[in-house]
Order: sequence, then structure tokens, then C-alpha cells
Amino acid sequence: MKTTETLEKIRAADREQCRLGKIGAALHWDMETYMPPEGVHERAEQLALLESLAHAKLTAPEMGRWLSELGSSWENPAGDESLAARDRDLLRAIRRAYDRAVKLPADFVSESAKARGLSQPAWAQARKDNDFAAFLPHLKIMIENARKTAQYWGFGSGGKTLYDGLIDIYEPGMTVATITPLFAVLRDRLSALVKEIGRREPPDASFFARDFPVEKQREFAGKLLEHIGFETGRGRLDSSAHPFATSLGPNDVRITTRYFADNFLSGVFSIIHESGHAMYEMGFPAELHGTSLAEAASMGIHESQSRLWENVVGRSLPFLEGFFPKMKAFFPEQFGGVGLPALYRAVNQVKPSLIRVDADEVSYGLHVILRFELEQALISGELAPEKLPAVWREKTKEYFGIDVDPAGPRSDADGVLQDIHWSMGAFGYFPSYVLGNLYGLHFWNKIRRDIPEVDAHIAAGDFSALKAWLGENVHAHGCRLEPAQLLEKATGEKLRTEPFLQYIEEKYKDM
Amino acid sequence: MKTTETLEKIRAADREQCRLGKIGAALHWDMETYMPPEGVHERAEQLALLESLAHAKLTAPEMGRWLSELGSSWENPAGDESLAARDRDLLRAIRRAYDRAVKLPADFVSESAKARGLSQPAWAQARKDNDFAAFLPHLKIMIENARKTAQYWGFGSGGKTLYDGLIDIYEPGMTVATITPLFAVLRDRLSALVKEIGRREPPDASFFARDFPVEKQREFAGKLLEHIGFETGRGRLDSSAHPFATSLGPNDVRITTRYFADNFLSGVFSIIHESGHAMYEMGFPAELHGTSLAEAASMGIHESQSRLWENVVGRSLPFLEGFFPKMKAFFPEQFGGVGLPALYRAVNQVKPSLIRVDADEVSYGLHVILRFELEQALISGELAPEKLPAVWREKTKEYFGIDVDPAGPRSDADGVLQDIHWSMGAFGYFPSYVLGNLYGLHFWNKIRRDIPEVDAHIAAGDFSALKAWLGENVHAHGCRLEPAQLLEKATGEKLRTEPFLQYIEEKYKDM
Repeated sequence: MKTTETLEKIRAADREQCRLGKIGAALHWDMETYMPPEGVHERAEQLALLESLAHAKLTAPEMGRWLSELGSSWENPAGDESLAARDRDLLRAIRRAYDRAVKLPADFVSESAKARGLSQPAWAQARKDNDFAAFLPHLKIMIENARKTAQYWGFGSGGKTLYDGLIDIYEPGMTVATITPLFAVLRDRLSALVKEIGRREPPDASFFARDFPVEKQREFAGKLLEHIGFETGRGRLDSSAHPFATSLGPNDVRITTRYFADNFLSGVFSIIHESGHAMYEMGFPAELHGTSLAEAASMGIHESQSRLWENVVGRSLPFLEGFFPKMKAFFPEQFGGVGLPALYRAVNQVKPSLIRVDADEVSYGLHVILRFELEQALISGELAPEKLPAVWREKTKEYFGIDVDPAGPRSDADGVLQDIHWSMGAFGYFPSYVLGNLYGLHFWNKIRRDIPEVDAHIAAGDFSALKAWLGENVHAHGCRLEPAQLLEKATGEKLRTEPFLQYIEEKYKDM
Repeated sequence: MKTTETLEKIRAADREQCRLGKIGAALHWDMETYMPPEGVHERAEQLALLESLAHAKLTAPEMGRWLSELGSSWENPAGDESLAARDRDLLRAIRRAYDRAVKLPADFVSESAKARGLSQPAWAQARKDNDFAAFLPHLKIMIENARKTAQYWGFGSGGKTLYDGLIDIYEPGMTVATITPLFAVLRDRLSALVKEIGRREPPDASFFARDFPVEKQREFAGKLLEHIGFETGRGRLDSSAHPFATSLGPNDVRITTRYFADNFLSGVFSIIHESGHAMYEMGFPAELHGTSLAEAASMGIHESQSRLWENVVGRSLPFLEGFFPKMKAFFPEQFGGVGLPALYRAVNQVKPSLIRVDADEVSYGLHVILRFELEQALISGELAPEKLPAVWREKTKEYFGIDVDPAGPRSDADGVLQDIHWSMGAFGYFPSYVLGNLYGLHFWNKIRRDIPEVDAHIAAGDFSALKAWLGENVHAHGCRLEPAQLLEKATGEKLRTEPFLQYIEEKYKDM
């Protein structure tokens, strides 16, 4: 009886906390899509208020008491074994968030928030000015605070590195020890492939730069959503400076893209990518809605969904076979004289560049591995932040074969300053992008075994079996399973690089 | 010292409560503009959570204690005379809201909310089915709860009627005793004018029903906003089923309109109307931002702003003189052969109809007065709700000269069931619409005295002096003054019908 009451209190607090998060997501979405520019100051205050209310709810002393009453502790987060499995999962999720929150001293939290508030605009300005030195003092503080955070959480001893503590934020259960050998293999084989492809004749992708009026692209986006079966009753597509997906509620998941008149591909594949994220968020089962369990298992699993849709499905021959006629019917002049083989080669063009977010499917991983290696060294203290730009250039040469002139006008802007993550103190996030590729190919291979005719489905524009598979095997778990458990349950496999490498080497062999 | 501390606590609680309100406004705006349909259930929960958090903040026991500590009570809401004027105004505003909230028993509040939740869909269905009897039981409960609410607040004795208590929600300080003689004069003279105009040859307004493609109207709306100087850095315009204006923050005020391909006028004048509301919300001074004082003085004062812009300015000859060339340049075919005098007559066409929201400037007031008389009688108990439809038809005949067939297919749908207000229990709101017209003409006459060349400004598309006047004399006060005080301070006058009646009779004399 007491147990039921306590559980009910925890559930109610969790519901409220989750709901405040969804409200915050709505305000964020609005900020990135429609908010008039001068609304930004009050919006920041509104978001801060929601966060503090949610934080207060999570870290209330009674929450700690209720968790203890049900046997949940740091060592045994899921609580009494007599509880139902879903309740134990919920306790585990809440305990994890609770401990992470209460183990950070209030002073440290507010000082970190202030430092981040200074760091982000300093980074934006430094990137604009190509001035790493101006960002360096902030970067040092971000590194130091990330280290302290991991320390407060008990990392940095007992075989757990500080960087493990940061990875664990985004990828529960993942460690440097697991990632390092995987990334080492990936790095060597992807780097070799990139260089090998670089020696080939590049495909003709010039037709994508023909004039695709933005208004027409916007209209065409509706056809794309329809083709892939994006549920417009439960979501919508808008434009923003950077594409993203966000959940405002179980039946309200929004994605954005951006349109360039001279880069038709960008808008299309952003939509497919973000739709992959959106379908995950839409796919949590009703019994988890409104709880802390209606969350992605990890950032990597999230990326596995978006990248599977964008690259493995969206850039495949069967997909283009089904979709190209629609593209051609809508843009007959722009695609005049273009055949399917040419289109396929063009959407899969490998062209190593300095910028991660513009990278193709093959070289993308190298950008991430470079950052993983650097941030690991920054957090461990092996690499002095002062040396970052030089080491960045060395690795760029090594992995991509690209020479960067240190005296060039964007030497650091297009290098060490290109990503926002470190300016926010988000160390440990980057590996998830590549882990997503790896998970995705494990899933894909299993999908091919379970649905042998999946290519034919995709060519016919029928994604129902594919979606059902992802729904049952990935989405339905919310965050009840850690990524490694989810992978094993869905595929019977442990994380390896081979599925991804075989896929990519096979795909690009004769491209 | 103690006083300063207590004041600071009240201010902080008030800031949080106001901010939660603005967050709710953002969610409402989204719900009416972009939200995917299936998001509605979770959105309702989000809004309910925000409301309950704001309510808890306002009615916390410590709030009562703090108010008392500063000498604020039911009898002396503004607290100690030693406090600064603005603090006293803030205490008055908070005390008003606090008392209204805490005087309602918790059981009653939750039962009322439940009853409203049932009443609204029942009304919507009843309107669809033209079935007053189906709505009647809900209407009775709404009336009873409105009566109880006023009773809990101490109305219904000591010379204050129950209906006074309801009017006071929307129009602080206003009473039935003040309104009744004003509305009696209005009713007779407006009714006479409507009937007199009805005997004239109607103007030709057929060109407004020419084809105005919605996409073109949407584009043209930008020109209209530019023409009237709507600050797009601090606000924006979207589409929704019903036009509205809402403030998401001091520098983020949004308006909506709707476009009909065969009714160009509707979109244009909705935009001007809602812009009038928006300018009020944008005009609260910085020192009141984020407090309970950054609110309209009343719904009537709010309407004075929207109606002044829509009718007195927007439908005037000088405004059309300045704006018609832009309309004509954008829609050359649609306005082919139309001259300014014809346009002026067309936008001011008087055409009594059954529907309030479609009403012209002259007959609009009659719709409101009809409702005022009926709801007053419903709340006092003089009129049995069963008799509403019949009495409604009698008054419709009397005021508009329109016969309604009680057996017609929309006899009640376009009659007693047309407005949403009563289904929400919002008795006492209607008078504000007409009070807005009255306040507006008091303001307008003073504006003409203070800015003799205002017509020339308007014709030249220069609204700066007009806006500055409204800003200084109306907007700058927030809700620090009650409507009657505000009117007196701005114009030196007490509320009368003459300014409005003279304006309207003069305008329509030779139309």
C-alpha cells in the first residue's frame, strides 16, 4: 500500500517534470522557427524558468526519500526486486537523473551555467573572427568544468576515466575502452577509402546546383513527406537555420530543414534525416508516454535512426528508383537529361571537406573520430588546449589528405572552431554520431534477414514493414534498455564495425 | 528593511506567475496556428499544468502573509501609504487576483472547470445541430456557477448585483448601473440608424468578392503591416481559424488573421484590428515588463485600441486615400474601375445580419447590447434560460428589423448559440466590446484636438504622432489605472455615448 502510494508520487513528479520538458521543447521550436528576433531575451528567461522548475521537481528532498523508500540507491538504482519491471526501469531512469543532479554542488551548477553563457557568444565571435586565442580561455574553463562534473559523478578512478563519465551522459554504458578499438579500425579503413575514392573521376553532380526555387522546394517537401509516410497529423515540417527534430508531445513531433536554391540535395536529405529522428520519437509506446522512459535509449541510437533513413535508405538505389520519378515530375527542367544511375552517383558523391556537417557518408566518420581523439586527450590532460589548432590540422592532413594553411583566413573557423559543442561544454557527445552509423548497420542487416524483400518495398515506396520493424525492435523500448542491451535484443549481436564497414566498402566499391 | 525584503519576494513570485502566463500564451498561439491536430490532448495537459503552477504561486499561503505584512487587505488592497506608488499599484493588482482566487473554494473551482470542460463541446455540438435544448442543461450550470462565483466574491448584496461582479472581471470598476443608461441611448439611436440606412440604396461592394487568391493576400498582408508600421522585429502575423492577438513577451506580440478568396475585406480589417490590440501590448513601458501591471486596463480599453484602428482609422477616407493606391498596385485587376469614393462606401457598408462577428460598425453595438440585456436577466434570474431563444428572436426583430423563423434550420445556431462565451461561463464579457467603441471615440476626439493634422498624417501613411499619443495616454499606464481613471486622465472626460454617437451619425449621414 505504502509502496503503491510512493510509486504514485514518483510517477506524478516524473510526469510533471517530463511535461515541463515538452513545454520547453515547444518554446525552443518556436525560437528556431517563428519567434520575432527581439523576443529572444524573454524567451531565454522562460526557458530558464522551465528548467529550474523541472530541476526543482527532480531534486526535491522528497524525491530522494521516495526513491530510498522503494530501495533505489546509487548502487541499486532500480530498487526493490518485487516491483514491476517497468517501475524498476522508471526508478533506474529517475535515480540516474536524480543522482547526476544532486551530486553537483549548487554553486558549481550556477557557475557552470554562467561560464557557458559567456563561452557560447565568445565562441561565435571567435569563429567569425577566425581567432582561436579569443576562445581559448573559455575553452579551458569548459574543459575544467567537464572534468569536475565527471569527478562529482565518481568518474576518474576505479577504472573509469573522466571522459567515460562524459560519454555516459549521451551513451549510457558506453566507455572509452569500448570505443577506442572500434574507432581505430574505422579510422584506418575509412581514411583509406576516402583517399582511394579521391583518386577516381568525380561524378557529375552539377545538376543539383541548377536553379531550384526555394518556394518550389518547400512545396516539394510535402511530396517527400507523403512518400516516406511522415505522419502529418502527429508532426510537421518547418524551416530553420539548422535542421533539427524535437518532440513537443507523443503526438506532436516536429522537424525542420533548410532550403538552398543552389543545393537541392541539402533540403531533401535533411528532411529524411530528421524524419528518422521524428519516427523514433513518435514510436514510443503509449504506456511510456509522459514518463522519463519515453526517451531515446541514447544519442547514438537516435542517430542510428536518422542515418539509417538518410543514408542507408534515402541514398540507396531502390529508394531513388521509387522517388526519382516524383522529383522529375516536379522539377522536369532541372532534371532534364538526368538518368537514375547518374542521380545515384551524384547523391553519393564522396568529397572530403573541412566541414563535418557537410560531409558525405564515407568521410563523416573521420570528422567524428578526429574530435573523439582530441576531446579524450583534452579531458585526460594529455593535450594542452593551446595546441589544439596545430593538432587539428595534422589530423586533417592525416585522415583526409587535406592541407590547411595555418595563416589562411578561415584556418580555425573551418577547423577547431567549426562546431558549437565544446563552447557549451558538451564533451563526449561526438562519438554518438558514429556509433549511430554502427548501430544502424547492425539493425539494417537484421532487417534484410527479417524482411528479405525490403529493397523491393522501398523501390515501391512502401515503408510499412521497415517502419514496423524499427518500431518493434528499437522505438518500442524507449530508454528501458541501454544501447548495448537494445542492440543485442534487436539483433542478437554485440557492437562491431564490420556491418558498417562492409556496407560502405561494398557500396562505394564500383561507384 | 523587512518591507523591502517582503516586496522583493512578492515581486519575484509575481514575475514567475506572469512568466508562466506568457509561456501559456506561446503554447496557445502554437495551438491555434501550427500545432498538428493530434497534439491537442497533450497540449491541453501542458496548459493545465502551467495554469496550476501559476495559480499555486499566486495563492500560496506566504503570498497572503506577505500582502498582509505590507498592509494590503480586501478593504485596502494597495497596502501601506508609505510604499512607492508603483508598488502600491502592484499590491492592488496582486491582491485583486489573490482574493478572487482564494475566495473560491477548491471544490467549487475544480467542479466548475469540469463543468466547463463538458459545456464547451456540448455547445459546439448543439450549435452544429441547431439544438438549443441539448445545450440548455449546461447553460443552466454555467449560469449557476457564474452566480456562485460572484457571490463568493461578495457581490449580490450591499447595492452590488451579482452581474456587477462578473462585469468587474473584465472591466474593473464598471457596473450595471453605469452601463444601463448608456446602452439604452445607444440601442435606440443605433437601431434607428440601422433601420434608416436599411431604406437606402446599398453601395456596390461586389468588387471585394472578386477573386483575391489567398497566397496573394498573404503576401499583401506584409505591405499592410509595413504601411501601418507594425513592428515585425517585435511581433509577427500568422493565420488561424479566428483572428486574435496575444503577447508572448514584451517584445514578442503576435497577431493572426484569416483569408477568404471571396472576401478580401475580412483579412485586411482583421489585421488592422488585431494590430491595434498588439500595439497596446507592445506599448507597456519597460518598468512594468514582466509584472502584473503590464496588462491592459480592461477588455474594453483593449477593444478601444483595436476598434479605433480598425474602424475610426482604417475605415476612414484619409486612411483609404493613403492605402488604396497600394491595394490597387497589388491587385490591379480586382480593383479595376474602382474609385476612392466607391471604395470608401463599400468598406463602410451597413448590412444588418444575425451574426455579431460579421457585423458592421453601426449594427455591431446592437448585437452586444442584446446580449448584455439577456445575460443580465439570466444572472438576476428574471429570465428563465428556457425562454432565451424566443426572447432572442424578439429582440432581433426589434433592434435589427430581422424576422427569424423559429423553425428554420439555423434558428438558434445563428441566434442564441452563435457565441462561445456563455458555454465557457464568460458572462459579463460582452459589454466590453461596446465600451471599447465608447472609450475609443473619447480618445479619438482628444487626439483630434491634440493633433489637429492627424487626418493629413493618416492620409500620408504617417502614424507616428497617433501612435505616440496612444502610447503616452493609454498604453503607458498598463493596468495601473482603472478604465474610468484612465479615460479621465487621458481626456479629462467621463464616459458618455455622445462622442461615439456623434461620430457614427456624422459618418453615416450622407454615406
